[in-house]
Amino acid sequence: MRIVVLAGGIGGARFLRGLKRAVPDADITVIGNTGDDIHLFGLKVCPDLDTVMYTLGGGINEEQGWGRTDETFHLKEELAAYGVGPEWFGLGDRDFATHIVRTQMLGAGFPLSAVTEALCDRWEPGVRLIPMTDDRVETHVAVTLPDSGSAAGSGERKAVHFQEYWVRLRASVPAEAVVPVGAEQAKPAPGVLEAIAEADVILFPPSNPVVSVGTILAVPGIREAIANAGVPVIGLSPIVGDAPVRGMADKVLAAVGVESTAPAVAEHYGSGLLDGWLVDTVDAGCVERVEAAGIRCRAVPLMMTDVDAAARMAREALALAEEVRAV
Amino acid sequence: MRIVVLAGGIGGARFLRGLKRAVPDADITVIGNTGDDIHLFGLKVCPDLDTVMYTLGGGINEEQGWGRTDETFHLKEELAAYGVGPEWFGLGDRDFATHIVRTQMLGAGFPLSAVTEALCDRWEPGVRLIPMTDDRVETHVAVTLPDSGSAAGSGERKAVHFQEYWVRLRASVPAEAVVPVGAEQAKPAPGVLEAIAEADVILFPPSNPVVSVGTILAVPGIREAIANAGVPVIGLSPIVGDAPVRGMADKVLAAVGVESTAPAVAEHYGSGLLDGWLVDTVDAGCVERVEAAGIRCRAVPLMMTDVDAAARMAREALALAEEVRAV
Repeated sequence: MRIVVLAGGIGGARFLRGLKRAVPDADITVIGNTGDDIHLFGLKVCPDLDTVMYTLGGGINEEQGWGRTDETFHLKEELAAYGVGPEWFGLGDRDFATHIVRTQMLGAGFPLSAVTEALCDRWEPGVRLIPMTDDRVETHVAVTLPDSGSAAGSGERKAVHFQEYWVRLRASVPAEAVVPVGAEQAKPAPGVLEAIAEADVILFPPSNPVVSVGTILAVPGIREAIANAGVPVIGLSPIVGDAPVRGMADKVLAAVGVESTAPAVAEHYGSGLLDGWLVDTVDAGCVERVEAAGIRCRAVPLMMTDVDAAARMAREALALAEEVRAV
Repeated sequence: MRIVVLAGGIGGARFLRGLKRAVPDADITVIGNTGDDIHLFGLKVCPDLDTVMYTLGGGINEEQGWGRTDETFHLKEELAAYGVGPEWFGLGDRDFATHIVRTQMLGAGFPLSAVTEALCDRWEPGVRLIPMTDDRVETHVAVTLPDSGSAAGSGERKAVHFQEYWVRLRASVPAEAVVPVGAEQAKPAPGVLEAIAEADVILFPPSNPVVSVGTILAVPGIREAIANAGVPVIGLSPIVGDAPVRGMADKVLAAVGVESTAPAVAEHYGSGLLDGWLVDTVDAGCVERVEAAGIRCRAVPLMMTDVDAAARMAREALALAEEVRAV
């Protein structure tokens, strides 16, 4: 079975670990979000690709869900001592090595997809991990930063890098718009469209529908390829009981005018793209609404408390795909 | 008192620490060797400048004489896990920060002299540290690498970077030639010639006469400026009892046809450059030979066992300068 998964960071990575356990012999291609990528200290950092790679390769910090296990932060401390920031982005000493190798290879002329493949030679994630594009895409968020001391409602309106919005501001101000800068001009990386065309099933893990899956779909050609693949496309809701399972998806959903509920996210993807949608058992009441939108829906436990739970979710997604296929 | 010191790495740095203790109110300018500089992992590494900066700024690993105190090597371990070398060059996690900041500033267009000044803003070494040049100079060593299994005397003749000769090969094969590649086209960094012109005394610490002091003197204009400064130029022998105090100076002295003795090094500098020369008490017998070459010479203890010993050496050097001046 050939499975294509569109993945963001933590949610995507943990789902993938479950998927591998559920179907160990499957041929899995992961199309990774690169809209979170950021240049820090002259180095190219790809948080989502690395989270997938570290999680599946056994190098992840399990507790926090990103970064390396057994990590130290001496380099970052020293950069701060030099007055060189940003300090709000947590790069550890071990993690730095990945960014140094990546930056060197990019500087030598290799595209990000080839670099990612080389990094995966070490981590052996057990999936084929491809960045959505080799071109530069950076998700920016339009915000109004409160002007201390000024009248309410005033403030500086500016666009900040997604990482600045997410990590530095902790999504503490509303996202007024989310723009994947460069996406329109980007081309899918080599292998992306081919993997979609050859897939038996396509999965959207419980990743952020706007800044993770949404960014991947914003690369021209990818949404169309998925819609026209002629195979079941199944998603898992990242919203459980009207709140994001993890992160601050509600903040960026508001920016695109989507309410933070499981059915609203399904409708946002739309029946033109999505064939099946899994919601959590607490959201069983919305199954009818999703099905009314032309998307087959099932309510199952969606909390990825451990790898087994993630594997059960993966099995449910594949079962729903078979239901769709049988229709 | 304005003092100019030409410094390499460990020997120069430790002498400077003694000099600062001996004359705390002196205005000290250090012209640092950059021939040891190397690009590693896409980063610009300046071992001699950093050794001076860390030693005088209190961040040095005292035991080994280079690198940072309280250092870890996680980043380097990870690079090795990616198969990215060289593994023979010991860059620690804290040390990496210096090279990252330097590389970023160079990339932004700042010359090395401005970058060094910025790095020293943090370390406050208590001296003005200027690289000998802002241009790229790389000391290469011609060697014949033994061909395993071939007849004696055969082998591959090649030029290796000084660091490869010194750190990787541990000077285990003869240095057939030492070439500061790029030196002929290099210009002294801003402030170098001015500092020499305004100096009251110029000191050569017990640094390597070929690959440290010699490389600085190879930058067109520096040797002439020192010879014509009209102030005492005093050196301290790095050779004690026919052996280098530290390192493998004998190997590179052989490459330039100079025997590894205290008087031979003085003669190598020559009376046209050097006014005074300190040899160790064990070499007292060679004082006459040095003076016969037109260089005033004294025998004093030259083992830098601690900062006080280095301070006593600095006082002896300054006393010899006064003798020379009084003539």
